[in-house]
Amino acid sequence: MTTASVDAVADQDRKGPGRPRSARADEAIIEAVLELLSAGQSADALSIEAVAATAGVGKATIYRRWPNKEALLIDAVTTMKGPIPEPAGVSVRDDLVTLLAGMRTKRMHRYGKVTACLLPELVKSEEMHKVYQAGVVEPRRDVMRGVLRRGVESGELRADLDVELTLLMLSGPAIVQNMLRWNPAVPDEGFAEHLVDAVLRGARA
Amino acid sequence: MTTASVDAVADQDRKGPGRPRSARADEAIIEAVLELLSAGQSADALSIEAVAATAGVGKATIYRRWPNKEALLIDAVTTMKGPIPEPAGVSVRDDLVTLLAGMRTKRMHRYGKVTACLLPELVKSEEMHKVYQAGVVEPRRDVMRGVLRRGVESGELRADLDVELTLLMLSGPAIVQNMLRWNPAVPDEGFAEHLVDAVLRGARA
Repeated sequence: MTTASVDAVADQDRKGPGRPRSARADEAIIEAVLELLSAGQSADALSIEAVAATAGVGKATIYRRWPNKEALLIDAVTTMKGPIPEPAGVSVRDDLVTLLAGMRTKRMHRYGKVTACLLPELVKSEEMHKVYQAGVVEPRRDVMRGVLRRGVESGELRADLDVELTLLMLSGPAIVQNMLRWNPAVPDEGFAEHLVDAVLRGARA
Repeated sequence: MTTASVDAVADQDRKGPGRPRSARADEAIIEAVLELLSAGQSADALSIEAVAATAGVGKATIYRRWPNKEALLIDAVTTMKGPIPEPAGVSVRDDLVTLLAGMRTKRMHRYGKVTACLLPELVKSEEMHKVYQAGVVEPRRDVMRGVLRRGVESGELRADLDVELTLLMLSGPAIVQNMLRWNPAVPDEGFAEHLVDAVLRGARA
């Protein structure tokens, strides 16, 4: 995008006289990104033009807030994921169910579709992959890691448990099922409970 | 694409005088699809033009063999996956390791990247999702299902094993790890063995 065209869009954007950059515009932009991704628009093909058109704002409004598409995508996914959950710390089983069930709310299918449409971008860009891992995946994985480690320390889980593999055994099935109902023979109802119970059957002390 | 432009490309394609549609051209086209997808080109953004250019053939050569992009994508992925494996039927553990390790050959990273770049297309098109499930996923899952069922019948696995959930516990971690090394703390070395052993620890009779 040239400076000239940025200015042109910025002028257009100012048509609402003196309109401040509002939180509402930010929300509309984030919502537009999520709407486009969940409809099957892959992140690498997503254009700022399309986001601007869907959100009903000028491109300059987007560029004032986010320096590039990557930053906007990360913000959108982080917003979608919501705050990092804090497990109650009662039992390993209940904490894991709470964390996994959070991935399967009524917005579950949207989450999964957005994630699926983000993947090509992560394949294409090592930098984007790093940012996504560090900003979105790892903070949430670390909460679950804490639950498993506490279980090992308390003796609820086996002392020789492979914690990292167990994390993958909890998140992998949930991710592929959320994205695309990978195995349609596995029901949504009670999924988190069934998965946690099956994993813990092999993980308990 | 208009009939006129198809004809134009077909004419261009015939420049190599009398060149027959060869198996080599088919291979070059399939290889071009896989090359583009594994480089992070998402399937929904993939154009027949780009495939033709990468394969060094005319678009008409592609359209003579595949009626549309969806058919070409399915053929490419099926070719990449190779023949449906036949487990030796010795022990549940060895059969599962063989099936899972087949997902992690030296071509593993390419497989994973291609799968990741195919996902937005599956999100966008219910039809494509059905064809992919029926043609690619389900035949391979059914081989693994057979191994688990034989294990239940032989008494090697618990009689009340949730076979469908167990299938997801084997494939889910392998898929997300192949696509993007979802948990970088889990090593590639011995992955299939470690995952199968962890799942079987909770599944054995």
